Amino acid sequence: MNFHEELADRTAWTENVVKTFLPEESGTQKAIMEAMNYSVMAGGKRLRPLLMHETYRMFGGTGRVILPLMAAIEMVHTYSLVHDDLPAMDNDQYRRGKLTTHAKYGHAMGVLAGDGLLNYAFETAMTAFDCGEDPERVAKALRIIGRKAGIYGMIGGQVVDVQSTGRAIDQEELDFIYELKTGALLEASMMVGAVLAGASDEEVEAVEKIASDVGLAFQIRDDILDVTSTLETLGKPINSDDRNEKTTYVTIHGLEQASKDVEEISERAIEHLKALPYENEFLLELIKSLIYREK
Amino acid sequence: MNFHEELADRTAWTENVVKTFLPEESGTQKAIMEAMNYSVMAGGKRLRPLLMHETYRMFGGTGRVILPLMAAIEMVHTYSLVHDDLPAMDNDQYRRGKLTTHAKYGHAMGVLAGDGLLNYAFETAMTAFDCGEDPERVAKALRIIGRKAGIYGMIGGQVVDVQSTGRAIDQEELDFIYELKTGALLEASMMVGAVLAGASDEEVEAVEKIASDVGLAFQIRDDILDVTSTLETLGKPINSDDRNEKTTYVTIHGLEQASKDVEEISERAIEHLKALPYENEFLLELIKSLIYREK
Repeated sequence: MNFHEELADRTAWTENVVKTFLPEESGTQKAIMEAMNYSVMAGGKRLRPLLMHETYRMFGGTGRVILPLMAAIEMVHTYSLVHDDLPAMDNDQYRRGKLTTHAKYGHAMGVLAGDGLLNYAFETAMTAFDCGEDPERVAKALRIIGRKAGIYGMIGGQVVDVQSTGRAIDQEELDFIYELKTGALLEASMMVGAVLAGASDEEVEAVEKIASDVGLAFQIRDDILDVTSTLETLGKPINSDDRNEKTTYVTIHGLEQASKDVEEISERAIEHLKALPYENEFLLELIKSLIYREK
Repeated sequence: MNFHEELADRTAWTENVVKTFLPEESGTQKAIMEAMNYSVMAGGKRLRPLLMHETYRMFGGTGRVILPLMAAIEMVHTYSLVHDDLPAMDNDQYRRGKLTTHAKYGHAMGVLAGDGLLNYAFETAMTAFDCGEDPERVAKALRIIGRKAGIYGMIGGQVVDVQSTGRAIDQEELDFIYELKTGALLEASMMVGAVLAGASDEEVEAVEKIASDVGLAFQIRDDILDVTSTLETLGKPINSDDRNEKTTYVTIHGLEQASKDVEEISERAIEHLKALPYENEFLLELIKSLIYREK
């Protein structure tokens, strides 16, 4: 199997794991389960649970304790999209060609389905205590998700992103948004995989740094593609940042410097990953594919 | 000290405990900490952490492990109010005479501050793992909060409440809303107090039933007062349910039956509380004051 076949295989498996943990659509309140499940199953690359599982495997993890955490991180990611799409936020009617949750189920349900997913993410993650794993290790994993999803992580990044809309921002603010809004959950994904497989504190810290670099390179690449790609390749309008007068890594540093930096950051991440005394060729390929993608 | 002085004292102490766990207002994202802290400190009876602590004391608890859980349950309660007040939900501009969170900080911040509080509630609750308490007991308490706050608890009740707006509902739906929307968090409060003090599964179950009855009696009393009280006594407009064409316990069963039922449910709760082989005179008085209040 080549990498792309393997990626398709593992993504399908990951999606199935996530699906297993979704709530049954029953009871007087079943409308919210429907809205939650619609939101999670509306598509996506399943990147976070995939990275979590591959990091877990790299550190020698073989148990089932990782499964509820994989579902939980995808629920956290999904709730953030559902709330981001609300009229009070970005007011988006479509995502990946499908109606957004509030567009399909109404504004109130958009709020509640997001709340339901965040809460259910923690409920799901806490079932990891039932897997026969050391409870201290599970608690550590839960706390990483809590921290990285919250005001010192993803939500913190979203706040600053919202506040920066419609005005020029400086490098420091842009770094903050990039580090937290997308970076934090990627860090949590890989760190939880490492922690549950029994990695040492130093190893978990190394993984956090790698994930942070991957997230940053991923986003700079996004900014570059918005300028250099074509509508056909990207599958979405190019130059959207320019039209939206959005400050990006490219508008601050220029295309040449951005390309140089993405190269440097990527090399660093890959080097650090290779320096760990463990191997996962697929994880390495996955990270490369994220950074060097053409769309 | 009489009961009312003691209640004022303990409420002030409880409020101070909650305050201790609020996030520091600093960093690039400090606007969200401000909005979260404003929401929590905007007032309220602090009933849930108070009930939690008194139940903990009744079962012989004396440690500090209860403190983060007290703060967490108040954060969950507060986030639910913040999101309930949003334009997409009830669209309320004032609560307890103060601007609601979104009215003061904008709609986007209303969404994010609520998300921030829910996430931070779990983060705060998880610090209970640091208190030297048996991690399995802490995990059990966390899972109770997760379950009772989520789609099988409070959020579930809110969904059905939202769906029932503007149409007549039957006894079954009304019971569902009363049981979950307010009842679930009261149950969680008392159950967590019991669990962390080392109560047995049977005792925790008994406490759940008592809290459920207290919540139900509290709400039927609310419906009765809306009909029988005066604007002066209640401090808010009476007959509001009638004007809003809202189905209540009184509109379904009539005033006489409602009064009879609240009496019966209350007696049952108090009897079950007294039947436990533990004593907390203040908790008993507190519960009576909730049920037999005139406003």
